[in-house]
Parts: sequence; C-alpha cells; structure tokens
Amino acid sequence: MSESSPIERLFSAQGRRLSPPQITGLMSAALEQPDLLSLAAGFTDTETLPLQEVLAAVESLHATPGPPEYLQYGTNRGRPLLRSQLAARVTRQDRRQDSLDDASVLITNGSQQMLSLALQTLCDPGDVILVERPTYFVMLELARGLGVEPRSLPYRDDGTLDHPALDRMLADWTESGEIRRLKAVYLVSYFSNPSSHSLPEAEKLALGETFARHNHFPALIEDAAYRDLFFDSPYPARSILALPGLERFPLLYAGTCTKPFATGLKVGFGICPDELWRDRMLYLKGQQDFGTANFNQAILEQVLSSGAYDLCLERLRTHYRGKRDALLETFESLGLASLGWEWQPPGGGLYVWLRGPASLRTGSGTEFQKRALENGVLYVPGDLCYGDRPPGNQVRISFGVLPRKLLAEAAERFVRTAAESTD
Amino acid sequence: MSESSPIERLFSAQGRRLSPPQITGLMSAALEQPDLLSLAAGFTDTETLPLQEVLAAVESLHATPGPPEYLQYGTNRGRPLLRSQLAARVTRQDRRQDSLDDASVLITNGSQQMLSLALQTLCDPGDVILVERPTYFVMLELARGLGVEPRSLPYRDDGTLDHPALDRMLADWTESGEIRRLKAVYLVSYFSNPSSHSLPEAEKLALGETFARHNHFPALIEDAAYRDLFFDSPYPARSILALPGLERFPLLYAGTCTKPFATGLKVGFGICPDELWRDRMLYLKGQQDFGTANFNQAILEQVLSSGAYDLCLERLRTHYRGKRDALLETFESLGLASLGWEWQPPGGGLYVWLRGPASLRTGSGTEFQKRALENGVLYVPGDLCYGDRPPGNQVRISFGVLPRKLLAEAAERFVRTAAESTD
Repeated sequence: MSESSPIERLFSAQGRRLSPPQITGLMSAALEQPDLLSLAAGFTDTETLPLQEVLAAVESLHATPGPPEYLQYGTNRGRPLLRSQLAARVTRQDRRQDSLDDASVLITNGSQQMLSLALQTLCDPGDVILVERPTYFVMLELARGLGVEPRSLPYRDDGTLDHPALDRMLADWTESGEIRRLKAVYLVSYFSNPSSHSLPEAEKLALGETFARHNHFPALIEDAAYRDLFFDSPYPARSILALPGLERFPLLYAGTCTKPFATGLKVGFGICPDELWRDRMLYLKGQQDFGTANFNQAILEQVLSSGAYDLCLERLRTHYRGKRDALLETFESLGLASLGWEWQPPGGGLYVWLRGPASLRTGSGTEFQKRALENGVLYVPGDLCYGDRPPGNQVRISFGVLPRKLLAEAAERFVRTAAESTD
Repeated sequence: MSESSPIERLFSAQGRRLSPPQITGLMSAALEQPDLLSLAAGFTDTETLPLQEVLAAVESLHATPGPPEYLQYGTNRGRPLLRSQLAARVTRQDRRQDSLDDASVLITNGSQQMLSLALQTLCDPGDVILVERPTYFVMLELARGLGVEPRSLPYRDDGTLDHPALDRMLADWTESGEIRRLKAVYLVSYFSNPSSHSLPEAEKLALGETFARHNHFPALIEDAAYRDLFFDSPYPARSILALPGLERFPLLYAGTCTKPFATGLKVGFGICPDELWRDRMLYLKGQQDFGTANFNQAILEQVLSSGAYDLCLERLRTHYRGKRDALLETFESLGLASLGWEWQPPGGGLYVWLRGPASLRTGSGTEFQKRALENGVLYVPGDLCYGDRPPGNQVRISFGVLPRKLLAEAAERFVRTAAESTD
C-alpha cells in the first residue's frame, strides 16, 4: 500500500496492529486448487445440518398465537427463556446442588463474541494472558489484535501442567511486578480445539491453588465450545463454575448453542457469576451491537424445549464418531504411526492432533506443507496454536467438514505426504 | 461495589470507562410502572413484522435442492449474493452511472456493529469525532466507551451547518496540532435518528470542501439506517459514495437490511470503497465474531430476490405515515404548538423531534421528566443526543412501537405534561 493513503494516518493503535488472520493463507491456497481436500477448516458437516428441525421450529413460532415478538429487537443480554434453559443445562452438566442464576447468563454472537467482550473489558496493550499448549488460534489472534501477549502455561514432558514451574513463574512475576499485567487464564477444557484434550478437575483446582498462594486472582475463562460434542460419554469434569475453591476468581464460562446444532445460526453464550464484570461486558455489547438476533434465539428456545436439539446432538455424535473412526483407521492401516507420528484418539470434538517426528517442520512455508499442497491436502500447522515457543512438528486435522469417503482420501494424501517427508 | 472485588483490579482502561447506557434509567422506569406508555423506544411496530414473508423465505430455502449450506458457517465478510444485492440497491438509490463494487460491501450484526468496527479501527482514547446536533445517542456512547470525544459540528441559528465557523475551527485545530486527533465525521443523513432531518447534497459537498481546504481528510461515516423508511418519496440526496469531490476521503456508508423489515433478524452492512480500511475492519470482525449469522443473510437474500422485502417496505411506509399523522394530529388538536413547542413533520423514519420553550428543561431528573412519568408517558430527553452543549429543552418522540390508539393516548399525556409545565 502507498504511504500516502489518507486512511493510514487515521488508524488507531489497534487499527495499525490488525493483520490478516493466519488461516487466510491456507484458505487462498484452497481457492486456487479446487481439487484440494481440506482437513483444515473447523466447519461442521453439511450433511448433519438440522434442516427439518429449523423449519419445524420456525413453523412452530409461526403457529404461536400473539404478535411475532421474536422478529422484533430483543434485549441486549438475550431472551429470558433461552438464558434460563442454558443455566439449567450447565447446572445439570455440572451436577450442581444449587442452580446457576439465569441472571449470570449473557447471549452473544457465537462464543467468539463472548471471548472478545471478555478480553476487551480486561486487557490493555502490554497485558498478558496465560494459555494452554496448544490453544485455540482465533483467541491468540484476538489477544494479539488487542496488543495482549498470550503466554504458555508451563508443562511437563508428559503433557500435564507443571504446577511447581507455574509457582516459580508467579513468584518471579510477583517480584518483578509483572504479575499486575496478568489478566486472565484461558482454558479450552472440553475436547479442545485444537488438541481434543480435556482438563481434569484436579488440574483446574491445582491452578486455582497456585494462583491463590500468590494472592493473585486473574479471570479464569473456560471455553466449553465442544463440551456437548462427546462421542461416547461426556467428559466428567465439572466446569470452573462448580469447583469449590475457585469462587475468589472472576469466572467466565463460554459456550455455544450452535456449534453442535447449526453454526449458521450463530448463537453463543457466557455464564459469568461476577456481576460487576458481567455488567461491563454487557455495556460493551450494548455499544457494539446491542443484542444478538432475537429470531435465532427464539429458534433455539424452540428446539431446546422440544427436545429436537438433543436428538440432533445424538445424531451428530454418532456421525462424528464414525468420521473419527474412518480417519484414524486410514492413518493406522497406512502406517502413519510407523512413520514416527503420534496421536490420541479424541473422545469428542472435531479434531485429531498429530505430533510428527521431532525433527519435522510442518509450519507455513515448510517443505512438508508444500508437499501436502502438491498432494492435494490442507491442514492447520500446529505452530499457529501456540502462544510462544511453537514446537514445529505438529498438525491439527479436522474431520468436521469432509464427508466420510473424501475424509479417507484426504487422510491417504496426508499419510503419503508424511511418507515422502521421511528419510 | 466494594473496592476489594478482584475484578476491579483487572479491568482494562476501556473496562473502567464503560458505564450503563443512559437509556437504562428510562427503561427501568418503564418496568416499574406497567401502565406507562413509551414514546422512547426506537423499536418498530410488532403489527408490521413480516411473519408470513420470513416463513415463506425459510420454506423456500428448505425447498432449494442441495445441502443447506446456509445453516453452516458463512464467511466473515458475508454472503456474496446479499453483498451484490446491496451494492446494486445503493447503486440504484444513488442513481450511479457505474456500479458499486460488491467487494466493498461487508455484512455486520446490524448497522451498529459497522459503526463499532469503524471507530475501533480509527480512534484511540483522546481522539475526536465530529457529530451533528443532535445525533444518534448510541454512537455517542460507543465513542465515549472508547475514550473518544464526540464534538458538535458548528451550526447557524437556522439549524444549517455553519461552514465559515467550521473553517475557523479547523484553522485553529491545524495551528494547535489538534487536527491530528480528528478521525471521523459522523452524519445521520436520511431521516435521522433522532431529528428526522436529512442532509442535502450541497451540505455534504460543502463539508468536503472545507476539510479539503485544510488538507485534512477524516473518515466520513454516513449512517443511512432510515433511508428506505420514507413516507412519500425518497430523500433525493445521493450518498457520500456518489458525490464527486469526496473521493479523497475514506468513506463508509452504513446501512441495515432489518430495521425496515424485521429487526429481530439483525443484519446490517457497510459499503467502504477504501480497501485498506475495509480490510482492517474485516480483520477486527474476524476476531470479534468471524461472521454474521449465515441463515439470516440467506433469508434476506430470499426476500430481496422475491420482491417480498420491497412489498413489506410499502406496507411499512403506509403504516408509519399513518402513525406519524395520528401523533401530529393529536399534538396539533390539543394545542402543543400554542404551549411554545415546535417541530417539523418528519418525511420518514420513526421520530418526531420536539423543541420546547427555551427556558424549559426536559433532561433526566428534571421536573418535566418527573411530571411526564406521573402522567404515564416516557420520552427520550434530547440532551442525550448531543456531543456537547446540549440545549436542554428538546425531546425525541418515537412513533415506532405503540399501536395507533395508544400512540394518541401517549401524545395526549405528553401534551398534558407540557401544559402543566407552562406557567
């Protein structure tokens, strides 16, 4: 761009900082090569979209006596029934004795808007959030867009959180004063995007204890977007909202109604028991769009009440379990493991996280990526999913979007790439 | 709130700045007094909501062969057909020789999100935007939430823009260096919320000339939310996108598909020919929600293609014209003018802007407001709609939401309040 463009002199610090999403490069490669099969996109499978259920919900709204208030503006915080349904749902999932308060629920434009409102109310440029290794890459971009530094929580070699190391880190930060800049800890704790890893209760509790020892209480943000998308059984851990000992932390649980139903409806939610924080996030939402589409919320109320939502979920679980199996069977039968690759079979979500041979480099612009494109397959380089010190040899594979047959074909192309990259 | 709440130590500068929307006080008054009639809310009339049309659009989507891609994630910038329909629509409204480029169109969560993305990419705390007198109060709150100072454009006594005064102001700011902080000029130029005023082409051109003389080119943001909601004929002025001489300014035209159709669908748009600026706004949207609900966009594509959208608009125009007439007839027949009140009959939109006697005070907490509440009627104090130096005696009356009979009753209560406040 020419330096004389008048807009460049007008940009805010944030405007200057903003850069294209890292995934853009991948997507343009996909557009240029139409026979490419994408194991990259986190989209859901078009086959499973609940067309009948959405139509039935709209017809049922239509048949409801009275004026169609759901075609009118709703409130900024969201529809009361939907908020109550979601509070009850998470209350059940967390096996709570008491009930979550409906007032703590906010409805947002997907769970992404919830994360965005949370960071905007907490973080100034130069602030720090702690993230898992690996973590959700759109959260990293959101943080960096705000000038916020996402840093990795410390891990042991076996992939579990290293609490003594965190303890030392917090002691150092307390001494240097840097701890004031630490605003939040972000956990993708159920069938994580990207790793499909889930976080045991004991790990969440131990995190809380470590912070409490240093008398620092950053916001704990738990992203539960894939909690409902388990294959065999729900992950048993209760959420941060239900764990004794975390009450002193400002808590936010972010979820979505539409990832496991119809992403095109785009309704997410947050549960935030901290009234002061919740109000600020609502004021900000009031300025940024003053409310999520009322119609979409009304459709969700219908399908949650009628049971259609949960029936769809059952269908989805079977469907994605089948696709996971198809993908992993291809990897196994073609010998990906014998080429030095490792993975854990996911118990839910849409992703398989692959660790390649230690010396392999899978990032953007690497030989491996070029070869994969030549072989007609797209993946997300694992490096994009790290706050810092990316390991270089990892890959996110999504089995969400491709139908089963193409999924097997794409997996075959991936294994061929892996074989060609082994010396 | 207790000072020891951990969240208060974590808030960002923006988080600390955020305060409840000013309208909240009004709305809680409404909740406490159920027989209150609201001339305050900018909602549309539930009677006119296009229930049949929305159902037909969903059925038509359902009947379309192929997978229901509209229930899947869409792209961040919005659906190609909808963007093309909107580009063609504004091209027609502006009587352009050439066509607006589809690539310049972004789809947002209502036009409010478009305004929010625009300010975030341009403004740092301490920056300034210029606004009309009066202007849209949610824009003022958005600006202040970002630490941005909304200042009034200078006006003559007859209510037209005072270009010589603007000229002097810009000369002063250039000398002081303050002009660097001036990032945007915000114009609600078709049947404005709140004043129903429209801005002639000559005024937009003269603004451009004045800025150009000072060699400063702030972004021009034109909010055309009510452009389609005319009663007799469209306001003839072309938009800033079509006026020769404004090409050197970064331009943004913000509109909505759903204010004049079904606000519960919440789909807005922007047209921004400046690629660099547009991209930054898209990157930001990518981080804040990565796309507006695809389903809602598909419904709008349907009703725009089928003509249902424009048929609904015709119905709405007749309906709101009738309500405007009912309101103004009540004001006239009960002698509001003889009590020293003035107004211009609006040619479109949802509002009548009233000027009370010069010495009257209508703001929050005034005797007049208390009396209005006692009489069971709610209005928006005009003071909320000013960037600075609010005149104190003005009122926004909305005829959007109340059905005709209640509208007349509310108007009667308002005139009674005015009569009781005259000595």
